[in-house]
Amino acid sequence: MKSKISKTAVVLLSGGLDSAVVLCLAQAQGYQCQVLIFDYGQRHKQEVACAVKITKASGCAYRILKINFPWKGSALLDQKIKIPKKITPGVPATYVPARNIMFLSFALSWAEVIKAGAIFIGAHAQDYSGYPDCRPEFFKAFVKMAKVGLAAKHRIQILAPLLNKNKAQIIGLGRELGVPFNLTWSCYRAGKKPCGECDSCHYRAKGFKEAGLIDPLIKR
Amino acid sequence: MKSKISKTAVVLLSGGLDSAVVLCLAQAQGYQCQVLIFDYGQRHKQEVACAVKITKASGCAYRILKINFPWKGSALLDQKIKIPKKITPGVPATYVPARNIMFLSFALSWAEVIKAGAIFIGAHAQDYSGYPDCRPEFFKAFVKMAKVGLAAKHRIQILAPLLNKNKAQIIGLGRELGVPFNLTWSCYRAGKKPCGECDSCHYRAKGFKEAGLIDPLIKR
Repeated sequence: MKSKISKTAVVLLSGGLDSAVVLCLAQAQGYQCQVLIFDYGQRHKQEVACAVKITKASGCAYRILKINFPWKGSALLDQKIKIPKKITPGVPATYVPARNIMFLSFALSWAEVIKAGAIFIGAHAQDYSGYPDCRPEFFKAFVKMAKVGLAAKHRIQILAPLLNKNKAQIIGLGRELGVPFNLTWSCYRAGKKPCGECDSCHYRAKGFKEAGLIDPLIKR
Repeated sequence: MKSKISKTAVVLLSGGLDSAVVLCLAQAQGYQCQVLIFDYGQRHKQEVACAVKITKASGCAYRILKINFPWKGSALLDQKIKIPKKITPGVPATYVPARNIMFLSFALSWAEVIKAGAIFIGAHAQDYSGYPDCRPEFFKAFVKMAKVGLAAKHRIQILAPLLNKNKAQIIGLGRELGVPFNLTWSCYRAGKKPCGECDSCHYRAKGFKEAGLIDPLIKR
């Protein structure tokens, strides 16, 4: 028996722009958000620090989940692999095998414990050109798996509200919602300002340009 | 394109009896096993220590993955929840929400990195009376999700070879395979000898009795 949907939500927050928009959107939709941040050996801790700042600005509660990965296999985990400077077709070097599967699994566990009715994730169209675990068919299959894999009697939705939006649309939505873009960090490198070279910087710059907005992180 | 099946396998090992049997079985089937052990804040570290001993006895390589759970919700993680003394119907207090989902997600990630063709897990019939993520329909759904969630071009099978066996059959199989039962630990409590009271002890004792064997952990 599935009871009525709880208005508590687990929100996966990376410190980047997309998940910050999702957090504000979930709040705007009336969800009481519990933010889940992963400290999983990313190249830089700036991402985690930004996620905490964004959460604090939102007034939501949060948990940081620390994972010590005993293997590498991605430019985001392994300092020896170079961050690609150009946008290339196919799976990027920054792909972390099964990352969303792992992150969503923890979100499921927490959602079951706190009886949350939804899990929010910031995956979007541009992601799934390269990352298999950002594709709509993946989320569909994950939901089916979760339905039979949990003891929870309440329904837990997996919501990826940006899935069909491009970066410019996400930034436009973020602007409407009052997302603190100045607290977000998209660059694959740490630093006082974004490198402007990695594909994440490329996408962010293109998005702001197309949305007709100025990125507060870029001095003019 | 799915290429031929790799004979490297990721084996999830808990330190208990079931996964020890699975490890020996995978080796007997010709797999080169890479053992994955989780240190996730279990009630006692004895489980992890036993898993390491079993792996060393097998001669396989292993990795310990440490996870700092920032929430509780199970008698296995929370010292405040009592370990049940009786076997009760339904989901037991020792259920850890989404545990197998999380563990298998990490196994998927590692399997993709090392191009393993299989993941072995020791789930079995008695488990799935209470734990939803031990049921055959869960594994079926997990496999479907993994197929669309990974970038891996090679096939990764999820194998739960004990799924239709009871404890006595598992112990019988372990005996044939030469499993070092003396190194395994099933009790939910730590100690010099098993408590003999928790449901895990009950099942183990019943299994040895039905298999007509003597548990090397129990002094007579």
